[in-house]
Amino acid sequence: MLSQEEKQYALKKYIEFLQHPSVSATGEGIRDTASWLKDFMTELGIDSTIEDTGGHPVVLGKVNNGGDKTLLVYNHYDVQPVDPLNEWKYPPFSATIENNVVYARGASDNKGVLIARLIAFSKYKGNLNFKFLFEGEEEIGSVHLSEYVEKHKEKLNADAVIMEGAGLDAKGRPMIILGVKGLLYVQLTVRTGDRDVHSSNAPIVFNPVWELIKILNSIYDGEKVKLKGFYDDIEPINAEIKELLEKYDVDPEDIRKSLGVFKLKTSDIKSLFTVPTCNIDGIISGYTGKGSKTIVPSYAMVKMDFRLVPNQDPKKILSSLIDHIKDKAQIEVMGMEKPVRTSPNSNVVKAMINSAKRVYLNDPVIIPNSAGTQPMGVFADLGIKEIVSAIGVGTPSSNAHAPNENVNLENFYKAIEHAYEFYNEYEKLNK
Amino acid sequence: MLSQEEKQYALKKYIEFLQHPSVSATGEGIRDTASWLKDFMTELGIDSTIEDTGGHPVVLGKVNNGGDKTLLVYNHYDVQPVDPLNEWKYPPFSATIENNVVYARGASDNKGVLIARLIAFSKYKGNLNFKFLFEGEEEIGSVHLSEYVEKHKEKLNADAVIMEGAGLDAKGRPMIILGVKGLLYVQLTVRTGDRDVHSSNAPIVFNPVWELIKILNSIYDGEKVKLKGFYDDIEPINAEIKELLEKYDVDPEDIRKSLGVFKLKTSDIKSLFTVPTCNIDGIISGYTGKGSKTIVPSYAMVKMDFRLVPNQDPKKILSSLIDHIKDKAQIEVMGMEKPVRTSPNSNVVKAMINSAKRVYLNDPVIIPNSAGTQPMGVFADLGIKEIVSAIGVGTPSSNAHAPNENVNLENFYKAIEHAYEFYNEYEKLNK
Repeated sequence: MLSQEEKQYALKKYIEFLQHPSVSATGEGIRDTASWLKDFMTELGIDSTIEDTGGHPVVLGKVNNGGDKTLLVYNHYDVQPVDPLNEWKYPPFSATIENNVVYARGASDNKGVLIARLIAFSKYKGNLNFKFLFEGEEEIGSVHLSEYVEKHKEKLNADAVIMEGAGLDAKGRPMIILGVKGLLYVQLTVRTGDRDVHSSNAPIVFNPVWELIKILNSIYDGEKVKLKGFYDDIEPINAEIKELLEKYDVDPEDIRKSLGVFKLKTSDIKSLFTVPTCNIDGIISGYTGKGSKTIVPSYAMVKMDFRLVPNQDPKKILSSLIDHIKDKAQIEVMGMEKPVRTSPNSNVVKAMINSAKRVYLNDPVIIPNSAGTQPMGVFADLGIKEIVSAIGVGTPSSNAHAPNENVNLENFYKAIEHAYEFYNEYEKLNK
Repeated sequence: MLSQEEKQYALKKYIEFLQHPSVSATGEGIRDTASWLKDFMTELGIDSTIEDTGGHPVVLGKVNNGGDKTLLVYNHYDVQPVDPLNEWKYPPFSATIENNVVYARGASDNKGVLIARLIAFSKYKGNLNFKFLFEGEEEIGSVHLSEYVEKHKEKLNADAVIMEGAGLDAKGRPMIILGVKGLLYVQLTVRTGDRDVHSSNAPIVFNPVWELIKILNSIYDGEKVKLKGFYDDIEPINAEIKELLEKYDVDPEDIRKSLGVFKLKTSDIKSLFTVPTCNIDGIISGYTGKGSKTIVPSYAMVKMDFRLVPNQDPKKILSSLIDHIKDKAQIEVMGMEKPVRTSPNSNVVKAMINSAKRVYLNDPVIIPNSAGTQPMGVFADLGIKEIVSAIGVGTPSSNAHAPNENVNLENFYKAIEHAYEFYNEYEKLNK
């Protein structure tokens, strides 16, 4: 349990951090915040530097406590833009507290978790070594992270990584996420001419939308992805993972409502974690304004993402896609992330479960891999086998990425305790 | 042949007309121009009125010369918007003449033809009766024309109609177009939810683009339209039409270049006139800006036009489409026009051919129906069997709808002669 003084100190630092804008999309306050963070880490006795990445800097910290094991703590100090500003009840960087809830951009995603982990570190007396990697570009897609990590392999080596933090579910249970789905994001463009032509020419000219639809049909048939080898490398669901999935209990109707969709494609919500997808994020061609305009457009463009399950390789799938499309469309690659899945029997996961139970007096919700992505693959590429996303301050009503982002301060203090217990537990299990 | 005085008078009136802006899209100058036109027609002895349509007015004229036959002359006094303004070498309503070419918005489409026909009428001494219907909304899709014509059936009855005017082809030959393709323009929308959701939900939510693609595939397979009964009513190509098509000689490579497309779907250019199509004019869904955004969009929308050949019925095809789609998408109808084809043996066509030969000393190019549409169906609905589009001042380099719209004055004077010869020839053939 935290003392009143410890809580006051933690809250003071949390509020200070929240009052530093750090919007990666615009660059607002990024350097200032990085500098504030480095100073705070130095104050805690962490050997800290601001590191150039080619984009927004990384704040890196290192502590050698003399043990055999090193934990890499990954968070990000950047936040999403604040618009629509007029929907906020308090200015987004005022960090106003009302009824023990703090309202601020970044309160949940990701400044609360970052501070909680640092405060927990400042209490920790064991021999576990620490590395802190605090990124400034997570909200714009971790543009330079993989390049930076690749370049500083030696510096970043560790036995385990704890990622951003998974927060609490709607029932207040801490979530532990053992991995992530991978991603391949591409943009395909079909161009059939220099300019749109009158649609009276439809009998004799190619329509790029029909051509694109032909390609899309050949990639996905509504059920299965038809790219050669797409399903070949998928890691079978083993008994441990099966057990986790069986415990995963959510009501499809709750999910449907929370997403605001009219119907679910399936009531098997577990497919979020186990089924790779081929999704269309956007498509555009021709005239899309009011009324009618009769043209055969000159090009059509689609953006699509493939979400991949553990052991699918985005690079292999990209080359299968390129072979498949040949010169029928121009392909632009806009993102690739490897899927990751850490064993539920690994020490990092066991330590996370044990410490969560101790702090929350409740069984954590364990998810074999998130449905979305985090840059876990970057760390998996370093050869690190134990990567987990857990310890969070947010709940589904924390409005991450939305107006009135907020965190209940009790959840912030609990996260400090969870991090503290986890550090000790992880040290113990590795003895 | 026109006298010097006649030419001067015609040119004066043409320039005056061009200097009156009449942009139907914005309404700029519409009332003024209609009023100028009515005054000019009155000056020529035509019983003229400005008629309310619910939108921009129609200018209607009537002349009883005591004969048995009545010719309805259809043109439009409205023009396209002028943008991009900075690409014009002269202000678009200055009607500047350089090297015997007049530059102005509307010079070719459609003010030159309208004036040529009126000037020709002023010289005509026969007993053919005339009705003039000059529309103010052609460039915005003849929004109120069909309603207006339907409402004034009696007033508008005639034996033959000459439409807007077909102009000259690239070789300077006058074009005579016996009909038009029909059109059904619809917008389909598939909505799957209230808002876009994160694409990590792709395994469990419907993607409206994939759903829309399923529908589009079921409508058109890349070769044939699959709507029930779509091809059933098509009028067979008879011997006369076949002969016309055989004479139609254009180089596919010239067409390809003029359209700016990389490849033609077929070298059979005649398919422009004989093949009904299912074209996509535009499609949009989700995120289409720079970079990547990972969402499952909440809706997808497509605009599409079916171009129909004589005797397909847009109403029948619409109900087949509605039956086909059921509740899978929302359908909005944005345009319907009937296909029309006048017999090459009709008097209006014979008179047009004979008079063209006399004026241009060259065989006209006769096309069984245009690849695009004109509101001919509106007049066919009155029971008028002889409808033809011919007598024009423009060439393919006249830049209709584009900056620097222009007409060579020799072509303007020839059009006056052609109209004059046609009136006399049509009277003669009907004796």
